Amino acid sequence: MKSFHPPQRTLMGPGPSDVHPRILEAMSRPTIGHLDPAFVAMMDELKSLLQYAFQTENVMTMPVSAPGSAGMECCFVNLVEPGEKVVVCINGVFGGRMKENVERCGAIPVVVEDAWGSAVDPQKVEDALRAHPDARIVAFVHAETSTGACSDVKTLVEIAHRHDCLTIVDAVTALGGIPLYVGEWQIDAIYSGTQKCLSCTPGLSPVSFSERAVAKIRQRERKVQSWFLDLNLVMGYWGGGKRAYHHTAPINALYALHEALLILQEEGLENAWARHRHHHEALKAGLEAMGLSFVVRESERLPQLNAVRIPDGVDDATVRQRLLSDYQLEIGAGLGEMAGKVWRIGLMGHACNARNVLLCLNALDDVLGSLGAPIESGRAVAAARSVLHPGS
Amino acid sequence: MKSFHPPQRTLMGPGPSDVHPRILEAMSRPTIGHLDPAFVAMMDELKSLLQYAFQTENVMTMPVSAPGSAGMECCFVNLVEPGEKVVVCINGVFGGRMKENVERCGAIPVVVEDAWGSAVDPQKVEDALRAHPDARIVAFVHAETSTGACSDVKTLVEIAHRHDCLTIVDAVTALGGIPLYVGEWQIDAIYSGTQKCLSCTPGLSPVSFSERAVAKIRQRERKVQSWFLDLNLVMGYWGGGKRAYHHTAPINALYALHEALLILQEEGLENAWARHRHHHEALKAGLEAMGLSFVVRESERLPQLNAVRIPDGVDDATVRQRLLSDYQLEIGAGLGEMAGKVWRIGLMGHACNARNVLLCLNALDDVLGSLGAPIESGRAVAAARSVLHPGS
Repeated sequence: MKSFHPPQRTLMGPGPSDVHPRILEAMSRPTIGHLDPAFVAMMDELKSLLQYAFQTENVMTMPVSAPGSAGMECCFVNLVEPGEKVVVCINGVFGGRMKENVERCGAIPVVVEDAWGSAVDPQKVEDALRAHPDARIVAFVHAETSTGACSDVKTLVEIAHRHDCLTIVDAVTALGGIPLYVGEWQIDAIYSGTQKCLSCTPGLSPVSFSERAVAKIRQRERKVQSWFLDLNLVMGYWGGGKRAYHHTAPINALYALHEALLILQEEGLENAWARHRHHHEALKAGLEAMGLSFVVRESERLPQLNAVRIPDGVDDATVRQRLLSDYQLEIGAGLGEMAGKVWRIGLMGHACNARNVLLCLNALDDVLGSLGAPIESGRAVAAARSVLHPGS
Repeated sequence: MKSFHPPQRTLMGPGPSDVHPRILEAMSRPTIGHLDPAFVAMMDELKSLLQYAFQTENVMTMPVSAPGSAGMECCFVNLVEPGEKVVVCINGVFGGRMKENVERCGAIPVVVEDAWGSAVDPQKVEDALRAHPDARIVAFVHAETSTGACSDVKTLVEIAHRHDCLTIVDAVTALGGIPLYVGEWQIDAIYSGTQKCLSCTPGLSPVSFSERAVAKIRQRERKVQSWFLDLNLVMGYWGGGKRAYHHTAPINALYALHEALLILQEEGLENAWARHRHHHEALKAGLEAMGLSFVVRESERLPQLNAVRIPDGVDDATVRQRLLSDYQLEIGAGLGEMAGKVWRIGLMGHACNARNVLLCLNALDDVLGSLGAPIESGRAVAAARSVLHPGS
């Protein structure tokens, strides 16, 4: 057996996205101790950079030492007590995962369903809360990674608060890619991932909790069922003042996240959001010129996750294998009920640039054309270019 | 705010230990997708390298995507069902954490206590199992990181099996440092960490489960309370055959672990164990020549984690700060009831070498001497050298 040397891919799936070289370099710096004063100072910077990315002043803002799924679980196990009713909005895979979490907390999910590919319907949430006045929490996904649909967080949080519910928001694919104001929108608990629009390596989950959420966690009747994710303990390490050992932090992964957030701050959040929007418009022009259609209607579409229907008679896996072998390009398969029916093309973080838009369109055009797929060949790149360089 | 450039320390605390440069380099290789065929092939190698490190043929052997505390939780939430009795042996901090896990699973801990600094007493375990014939699991720590005591895993597992109990073993600090035979000793569930004797970056927890353990997990009455750690789901990704998405694996951290395990295989497990033993003998000779005494009696002492008593009148924090500022050397503070009373000097993995033994002794001699501590100054290095180079 030998050292593993990965092929050099271009990652345009649902994440991980291409990691910025500065981040890979940061990750390889020498490991130091998790209680080293120099490391603790870095943690403080990291928290403040995360507050910027989330647009919040929440004190309880930090990365969970595990991937986004653990960030989701962190929100649920801390905020949900057994026997409580939780309204869970399902419009894709990750809403379904939220329901699993509610059940495993011994709580009662009240499901609000929308079609895969649609946003969460605020009226349905309002109706559910009227029907279940004893519900305590509303949970939903901002950017559904399985479909590419974007829900209206601000409105959903307002409805939840009017019914005296706390809110748990999945922002795994949202953070850094589309407008998100945790403070202004008064989100109570939110989790994200590092490997999407932050262009960082996978493995951490940034989270943030409002004062109301923290108060509920402090007043719990039962201990949090997870020792590892119990925020009452985690904050002994991540909170201010003297740091107490809870678990050994993933030191080098945190170097990487610090660098990723610094890059985001250097660019500016609004600029990053605009960049995602701009390159999405170019990709969209190209895909539509090719004759491919989007799963999500335009008004609810995410720029960073483009789900398109696989043309009739085209084999999903064959195309993705050809893209990988001929172009070193990864795009995503469909998940759950969309498996085999859609591709998910990511334009996230560092991977969201003109070069990748053109690479992807060119590669798709070539592979689909050579397989005899029913597409309009040879038009996509020009259509994208006209968006990227409107004057020329 | 700027990029974070950590100071270059020598890590001789309880972990993280110094990371081998090959591992840091591996970690910075380009990120690829978690379902990329090249990555899946690497995962297979990683599992086989882990089987070697654990000395087992257990199929369910893989890294949990989070630190050792999550590996511990993974064992408990999967194997323990609510209402079950679990014998938990406590002889330090990590036995206490096991008890917390049992309680948070809604199960009943039966505590077997031994003094901090002692090994777990097999007779007490035997007695507890006789008194509680309905116990289903016995849990204990192989290498207590808080005290440096080593317990007799083989004997404890035999006793547990005689009473028809499964076993959960904490090998966070053990793996790669001292003899451990998961297969031969018939351990049912074991977890470890990457940042100790494997010299890897912190953030992952290698685990392994016997067929008996897997059978119990498959036959559970209630779902595992953690979605993220539910092995029935995790194995859809880490098991053989077609890999199904469960969570996004921490790609670069897994590159690092692959490299760390490769280095271990190149050296050979037995050689690594002997290296830890040899350098411990040298460190011990030096510390004793200086007049410092060990917390753990010689027959139960771990080579990789040396807990020594702080001399009378010496301030713990002052010494550790001086070691850090003057020598860039990190040693560990005492944990729990040993805080302020002991230092924990790690000799783990890549950091377990002659240079570090001499650095540590020289630095301690200097700092303690300059503070007027009651030690025998000027003898430690020579004593260690006579062990390192017995002929010269």
